[in-house]
Amino acid sequence: MSQQDFGLIGLAVMGENLALNVERNGFSVAVYNRTPARTEAFMAERAVGRKFKATYTLEEFVASLSRPRRILAMVKAGQPVDDLIAQLKPLLEPGDILIDGGNSLYTDTERRGAELEAVGLCFVGMGVSGGEAGALNGPSLMPGGSPDAYKALEPILTKIAAQVDDGPCVTYIGPGGAGHYVKMVHNGIEYGDMQLIAEAYDLLKNVLGLNHQQLHEVFKEWNGTPELNSFLIEITSQIFTYIDPETQLPLVDVIVDAAGQKGTGRWTVETALDMGVAIPTITAAVNARIMSSIKAERLAAAQQLPGPSASFSGDVNAFIDKIRDALYCSKICSYAQGMALIAKASRELFDNRLNLGEIARIWKGGCIIRAGFLNKIKQAYDENPDLPNLLLAPEFKQTILDKQAAWREVMLEATRLGIAAPAFGASLEYFDSYRRDRLPQNLTQAQRDFFGAHTYERLDKPGTFHTEWVPIQESAPVTR
Amino acid sequence: MSQQDFGLIGLAVMGENLALNVERNGFSVAVYNRTPARTEAFMAERAVGRKFKATYTLEEFVASLSRPRRILAMVKAGQPVDDLIAQLKPLLEPGDILIDGGNSLYTDTERRGAELEAVGLCFVGMGVSGGEAGALNGPSLMPGGSPDAYKALEPILTKIAAQVDDGPCVTYIGPGGAGHYVKMVHNGIEYGDMQLIAEAYDLLKNVLGLNHQQLHEVFKEWNGTPELNSFLIEITSQIFTYIDPETQLPLVDVIVDAAGQKGTGRWTVETALDMGVAIPTITAAVNARIMSSIKAERLAAAQQLPGPSASFSGDVNAFIDKIRDALYCSKICSYAQGMALIAKASRELFDNRLNLGEIARIWKGGCIIRAGFLNKIKQAYDENPDLPNLLLAPEFKQTILDKQAAWREVMLEATRLGIAAPAFGASLEYFDSYRRDRLPQNLTQAQRDFFGAHTYERLDKPGTFHTEWVPIQESAPVTR
Repeated sequence: MSQQDFGLIGLAVMGENLALNVERNGFSVAVYNRTPARTEAFMAERAVGRKFKATYTLEEFVASLSRPRRILAMVKAGQPVDDLIAQLKPLLEPGDILIDGGNSLYTDTERRGAELEAVGLCFVGMGVSGGEAGALNGPSLMPGGSPDAYKALEPILTKIAAQVDDGPCVTYIGPGGAGHYVKMVHNGIEYGDMQLIAEAYDLLKNVLGLNHQQLHEVFKEWNGTPELNSFLIEITSQIFTYIDPETQLPLVDVIVDAAGQKGTGRWTVETALDMGVAIPTITAAVNARIMSSIKAERLAAAQQLPGPSASFSGDVNAFIDKIRDALYCSKICSYAQGMALIAKASRELFDNRLNLGEIARIWKGGCIIRAGFLNKIKQAYDENPDLPNLLLAPEFKQTILDKQAAWREVMLEATRLGIAAPAFGASLEYFDSYRRDRLPQNLTQAQRDFFGAHTYERLDKPGTFHTEWVPIQESAPVTR
Repeated sequence: MSQQDFGLIGLAVMGENLALNVERNGFSVAVYNRTPARTEAFMAERAVGRKFKATYTLEEFVASLSRPRRILAMVKAGQPVDDLIAQLKPLLEPGDILIDGGNSLYTDTERRGAELEAVGLCFVGMGVSGGEAGALNGPSLMPGGSPDAYKALEPILTKIAAQVDDGPCVTYIGPGGAGHYVKMVHNGIEYGDMQLIAEAYDLLKNVLGLNHQQLHEVFKEWNGTPELNSFLIEITSQIFTYIDPETQLPLVDVIVDAAGQKGTGRWTVETALDMGVAIPTITAAVNARIMSSIKAERLAAAQQLPGPSASFSGDVNAFIDKIRDALYCSKICSYAQGMALIAKASRELFDNRLNLGEIARIWKGGCIIRAGFLNKIKQAYDENPDLPNLLLAPEFKQTILDKQAAWREVMLEATRLGIAAPAFGASLEYFDSYRRDRLPQNLTQAQRDFFGAHTYERLDKPGTFHTEWVPIQESAPVTR
């Protein structure tokens, strides 16, 4: 009996579609699912007439694969991955390759890789982005771990990945948990993009009073610009055209304004805090979802906390263009933050092995944040791999300098009218902080030295210093 | 030989001062330090003539204490606490009480408490705020854990704590890790307060051009108002009077604008994210310290990214008052966020046992955030213990409604001139989000359903729904 080229474990929506993608590209695939009924259904439906082999025990699954085995696990992140590894480990042989294609936390991937490599197995932690359609037709793939294992997988991965003008949307990301790390940051950036679009929508609708047809047209127009052309802008323009059959209202107007989240945006923010990288736009996006989720509290507060009564009185079409510019400047800041987080991880966690230009390139297709804009980022890092921040790349720098007046005007109007735009605002604060030679934290350091003897540094000479500022009096505070 | 009333382990700066505080209040104290030289130095200097007993082994230390033993450990948070517990555990007897007075992560405290209670020992995780001076003269104490243990400690803790108009700055916080949890949030609020003051300083100095003498006077005046009277405003006013003997410049102008941090602010933000509570002001404060720390990058960026060339042209004295109002409104938002985080912890982690009014009360003295303002918070929760958010307490609501125009004007000016004010801004965004009945996350939910079938809820009926929006085309993005 001939053996299969590839093995896939976990036939939920992502696994099933990835299996079909691999098979369509010319590889025979053994499949296994913990619940046999799922396997049976798959074989009886989408697998019919294709080169799939159903297996019903992990022993049978492993035995059905050609050596070295190439196995992609698409199981729920967390304990299920550890459980699977515990079962598979005794069945595999040195040189076999296990890929975890779920949204695992990169530190878990580091731990699992070390454990498997200790017994001669290869482990690849691979980010997969693109949802159901991407999994089937071509996702963006972010594999990390053993470079040799990547070489053995490359013929398959380059075929199943999304294809764009300069190649397949896959590259070897880096050692250890680098693939899952980069996927996590990708998701954080996705949170930022979605929140920035939501704020643009809010301003267009509630400052300028655009209706759903006009919103559709604005986003459609923006999707035609090289700056904003992207999957998320495209689907946004389409969303406004969908009329709810029940109410005859635009469906988006019937949807509850309380956003869910699955945790990878939060991980990005927590990782950035741990690594000492400021990603305020992405952070504002995560916080905005939290604020949206306390809908009942907001409904009550809205009755009690009126905002300004001012309204917009300028040129609507000119202001639409300013919102577009503000969105684009904010998006540049958001990506600058995400790429800075990846750059720091490259230096501190991944032996300087991450290629930021290549990472931008593989996001150009397949994934949720795919956009023409990523080509500009790739070019910026190709020109200068040591770029300290995207804001300093010649094109982005010039763009922001050209558009900052419009960006500020949008923030002025939002502030004046009381329309929250937290990610636009956090982006502008990031820009205004990053470009300051002197920030006011000299006072913070003075305070910390005053009350806690934490010491400070001086501008005029090296060293750390402590001052006995003045005797602290245990003064009773004013109370009333 | 008579036995000692209290035991203290760890004679670093906080431990030594707390030991002196306990002894001064009439209790005999056994002390132990891992390095004997530290104990000898203490006995030869500050302990002379006082009721201290030096011990040089943990066996001797434990044997010197009256039963049930009351032991305060002031050792470095993390592994040293676990190491100490491992050594002490076999020496103690059921009913003995161990207090961890360090800045331990509350989840560690939960774990340690369970381990010690399993063998009949009592464990109290206690937040201690006030620095060196507070430890000696009266800190704010936040003990959590066993209520019976707290009862046994109360006679000592109420004496050593700071005393304010309505009692000592100590109360039983709640079960398990509640004491360390509340101390963590206290520190997060402290980050927020310090950042808000730094931004006010930046605006006064760089928008209005105030010199250090004028800055001193403004903060001194603000410290005389019931809204802003506080330890941090007081020391800020004093900082501006300190002239560097070497340069004859105000010392604060010679200090490097790169703020350090020790981690509890970051823990607060991470905990808030995990618990789904938005604390954007405190988050902005933590991020601002990170931005300040990349000083070399900022110096380079300042050369390349010029901001607006506009300058301030209004009434200076009127704008000083507006900055004061913006600072106060932002401070209310920051505390609203911190208290919301504590309220959620009370519901989800601590059996609804946290008394928010009492917590505000014990911060009125001893600690870094001590302020007259806390009395207003205490009153707000005394009037309505189920207040969903401080912004809805009658006094704070009215204050913000009265001052929001000034607050917005300050943000407009900062945005127009390009002076970053990230915590002022995050506070206003919080206010403008919290009071919105409709936020734009209906679009976010539509997008998530479009590309990932994440489903959405409807405004007009219960349930979760999914729409096949339109076929997603795997369109190649524009590249150029």
